[in-house]
Amino acid sequence: MHDSLSQTFSALADPTRRAMLARLSLGEANVSDLAKPFLKSMSLPAVTKHIKVLERAGLITKTREAQWRPCKINGEAFRDAAEWMEHYRIFWEESFDRLDAYLKTVTKQPAKGKKNARKR
Amino acid sequence: MHDSLSQTFSALADPTRRAMLARLSLGEANVSDLAKPFLKSMSLPAVTKHIKVLERAGLITKTREAQWRPCKINGEAFRDAAEWMEHYRIFWEESFDRLDAYLKTVTKQPAKGKKNARKR
Repeated sequence: MHDSLSQTFSALADPTRRAMLARLSLGEANVSDLAKPFLKSMSLPAVTKHIKVLERAGLITKTREAQWRPCKINGEAFRDAAEWMEHYRIFWEESFDRLDAYLKTVTKQPAKGKKNARKR
Repeated sequence: MHDSLSQTFSALADPTRRAMLARLSLGEANVSDLAKPFLKSMSLPAVTKHIKVLERAGLITKTREAQWRPCKINGEAFRDAAEWMEHYRIFWEESFDRLDAYLKTVTKQPAKGKKNARKR
């Protein structure tokens, strides 16, 4: 479980950490600002631990600027995961196509479907 | 940890499970064929557990055909993860660009080095 790709996917396997990344995708944030919205539902040590997991997985970098600890997204870990996903593109694109075909059916047919249902 | 995206990323966070997916990316395989290469390094229950994790995460589907249990990749879970990754494309593309620039530097320089080495 300690190879870097496993560490990246493991770090992504948590909604709090994904929410933190979503916040950072809007721009850098200090640890305290990043932590704030999560302190309503969890303790500071729990929040800090999540930030550390992201940092250890290389998904974010935390620097020091006087009393601040600005965090930002580090694209490299994302790149490795995205590269890995790329090999499976054929499978998820197939699935996109199926979803697309299905959505076309349901957006065209509901009226028809209801009609038939009423007939029975 | 039980939302489906977390379950997908968590299932991907293991080299054995990623190796199983790599095998299935080449085509369907029965549980026994899928398990075989891993039985050198782990027990059958351990291998079976990995297959179950992939199945529960929706990354593979296992069907029944007489005595066979063919497994195949299910694109939908990949699609959800790929869609999520897509939001971070700007970060990993930036990182691709940086890597590209770096590789251009290092591929330019060793050639020079080799030339000199041959001259010597």
